[in-house]
Amino acid sequence: MQDTFVLKGNICFSADRDHLSVFEDSFVVCEKGICRGVFSRLPEKYRGLPCREYPDRIIIPGLVDLHTHAPQNGFRGLGMDRELLEWLNAYTFPEESRYSDPEYAGRAYRIFVEELQKGATTRAVIFATAHVGATLLLMELLDEAGLCAYVGKVNMDRNCAPEICEAGAGESAKETRRWLDLCAQRGFRTVRPILTPRFIPACSDELMRELSKIQREYGLPLQSHLSENRREIAWVRELCPDARFYADAYDRYGLFGGDVPTVMAHCVHSTDEETKLLRKRGVFVAHCPQSNAALASGIAPVRRYLDMGIKVGLGTDVAAGFSLSVFRAMADAVQCSKLRWSLADDSLSPLTMAEAFYLATKGGGEFFGKTGSFEDGYEFDAVVLDDANLRHPQKLTVQERLERLVYLSDDRNVEAKYAAGRQVAGKKQAAGCCSDRAGAPAAEAVRK
Amino acid sequence: MQDTFVLKGNICFSADRDHLSVFEDSFVVCEKGICRGVFSRLPEKYRGLPCREYPDRIIIPGLVDLHTHAPQNGFRGLGMDRELLEWLNAYTFPEESRYSDPEYAGRAYRIFVEELQKGATTRAVIFATAHVGATLLLMELLDEAGLCAYVGKVNMDRNCAPEICEAGAGESAKETRRWLDLCAQRGFRTVRPILTPRFIPACSDELMRELSKIQREYGLPLQSHLSENRREIAWVRELCPDARFYADAYDRYGLFGGDVPTVMAHCVHSTDEETKLLRKRGVFVAHCPQSNAALASGIAPVRRYLDMGIKVGLGTDVAAGFSLSVFRAMADAVQCSKLRWSLADDSLSPLTMAEAFYLATKGGGEFFGKTGSFEDGYEFDAVVLDDANLRHPQKLTVQERLERLVYLSDDRNVEAKYAAGRQVAGKKQAAGCCSDRAGAPAAEAVRK
Repeated sequence: MQDTFVLKGNICFSADRDHLSVFEDSFVVCEKGICRGVFSRLPEKYRGLPCREYPDRIIIPGLVDLHTHAPQNGFRGLGMDRELLEWLNAYTFPEESRYSDPEYAGRAYRIFVEELQKGATTRAVIFATAHVGATLLLMELLDEAGLCAYVGKVNMDRNCAPEICEAGAGESAKETRRWLDLCAQRGFRTVRPILTPRFIPACSDELMRELSKIQREYGLPLQSHLSENRREIAWVRELCPDARFYADAYDRYGLFGGDVPTVMAHCVHSTDEETKLLRKRGVFVAHCPQSNAALASGIAPVRRYLDMGIKVGLGTDVAAGFSLSVFRAMADAVQCSKLRWSLADDSLSPLTMAEAFYLATKGGGEFFGKTGSFEDGYEFDAVVLDDANLRHPQKLTVQERLERLVYLSDDRNVEAKYAAGRQVAGKKQAAGCCSDRAGAPAAEAVRK
Repeated sequence: MQDTFVLKGNICFSADRDHLSVFEDSFVVCEKGICRGVFSRLPEKYRGLPCREYPDRIIIPGLVDLHTHAPQNGFRGLGMDRELLEWLNAYTFPEESRYSDPEYAGRAYRIFVEELQKGATTRAVIFATAHVGATLLLMELLDEAGLCAYVGKVNMDRNCAPEICEAGAGESAKETRRWLDLCAQRGFRTVRPILTPRFIPACSDELMRELSKIQREYGLPLQSHLSENRREIAWVRELCPDARFYADAYDRYGLFGGDVPTVMAHCVHSTDEETKLLRKRGVFVAHCPQSNAALASGIAPVRRYLDMGIKVGLGTDVAAGFSLSVFRAMADAVQCSKLRWSLADDSLSPLTMAEAFYLATKGGGEFFGKTGSFEDGYEFDAVVLDDANLRHPQKLTVQERLERLVYLSDDRNVEAKYAAGRQVAGKKQAAGCCSDRAGAPAAEAVRK
């Protein structure tokens, strides 16, 4: 069975947010797509399973990208010195309008999925565009690649460029239902639809009411943006004078968490009230440090969110972020937390590497259920990393090598990738039988 | 002659800080190591020269790294979530002490030079350690690689870990003279010595007096650190109660610019008085945004320095910075300037891509004389970039492709590199004769 096997190597994962667990030269078991834990000596009952050895490699859970925009991938790294509105008008809106053309969408989304596949990401929560056809195409490509994703057809019926604005709330809702029905017909294996109001300024009250009905009817999770920058927040206050704060403009339509998984990108400037509602409703924060720097939005108080028990993961937010790499998001999260500490607020201590690793795996992974860890019962996503090209003159521990991979690696370091129990990238290895190997004088695994 | 030739491709450079000059499908001429300008049609007098064609590639001046620490290269990407003093004690000091061992130094410096050579950097201003032997070895390796560099044997006789502290000012000065005499004997082609007091806290008054004598005797340029973080500045105030401000602690020994090129890393918290002295003495600022984030130092007011006419370039500051790439320093300079604008001081507008490109080429290049540009009379450094792997679904201009290279490229994109008029990296191309090609119906070059 292709979803039942054992991997052997140096295994790292986060069981909790403060500690990185490191098991050298050990085994991780995948049984019917579900992780059965990490073992320094393979238990008897697993010894008959096919075993793939990755000597001296580092094996981690797949990385989770809680927020990115697939149609913006084609222009990442462009206009990075512009301001938000200028950048939206110069790049985002004209580019997104092209996705009405299936030929263009196919070409662009193929590049996106291939680039995502080359990296260490196994799961992503993705904005598409308002176009049903292109969104389905993106979902098909991700499903074929075996990547796990929530993908949203975007809803927007006001305050956006005419070429991408939908023709009213009724039309937007109708297209959304058509898309959801087509999704159900297609029967994707690893990809699911997610309700995606672009953000409050782009969604009329009527559209929010329609989306609320759709959410109840289909039981859909939801993604959107929240409290990204000060001008946007002031704008929401103008548009929704009855809302007590930004998040309330979602909440009064029942579109702010509670029963269904909900993720809000950014939360850079959330007030105390908003922060409490995030916690109360179990809403995930997608922290996107690179994007928040690029658009001069600021730096979110991640330490405060974690201390309060709010659920947090990392997002690349392409193309306000220029990199699709969640490793890069981890590095940026640490670095930006230091700048926040030095420039704005020294009451919140900077994030540690262990915390950033947690956010990128188990923290964001929770949005998908039990994912992002190698504990027993978790869905099995794994990335095998080869750091041989990251040269160093001295000896390093596995944990030190992992930190260097976070800061210095690129797609060349991803040797193999597994998502939802199946290998989706890298050379397929002819698996031996574990029983041949378990007898060898294996070094006892060290937990650090 | 290997230092006389023509390159053909899409040529980009900064003539001034505000504009990027782009010449599509054009020629750049190198005559005896000196650039003779960029031409859309090759002048008659150059038509007999050997010509290397790089179709559709982008050719830029070599990048200049104004501040980095070669012996810290082995641990870049490690301990990036630690604070300055903890990080120095855990990594920097123990690692630098190993360079007393020539075998270790050789192994480590070989990695450094090979990694530097793979990237787009052609010139660098480098800290070694206090060890004469290892410093000479580094200089030899750089010279063999053909890279242009100032390299400094470090001086430090107080307030540093015993294993790397020199035994008094006299010993430090004696070793420095021995090193300089050995440099003169070796006769390097592209590498030069530079005087390198580590920073004020590590150099006694007596050592500063000795270095002042050595500088006058040998006419040496100088590199050091200045106003990096607030605790360091307070410490200097304690150590040098007579100095009016940090820079004055160098200046009162005549070690703060004037006649010889002088570069100070960081200048994050320079006061108005210090800033004026930087300008008056023509001292270069090496802006190191990644390092300043990593050590929570803050973000230097680069816009103010540029507006005042202070000379500024970029530094990677490995290993407080984790990346050896000056492209990455350009991206970080833009992004950090935006965070500074949003978090601390909106009176200074963020840096543009054109400005970052200027800093990385002509801005820093001035430290070496006339370098960092393709104007007539400049020393010829060039990097040929192949961006074919940076896929995009739409058409892009050369300038847009260059911006993507800044944000998204790695060493795979460096196809060839020339420093001081000679090819130092990349496949050597059999050069044709320009006269064969100039007759072809070449598109007229477009200056944007």
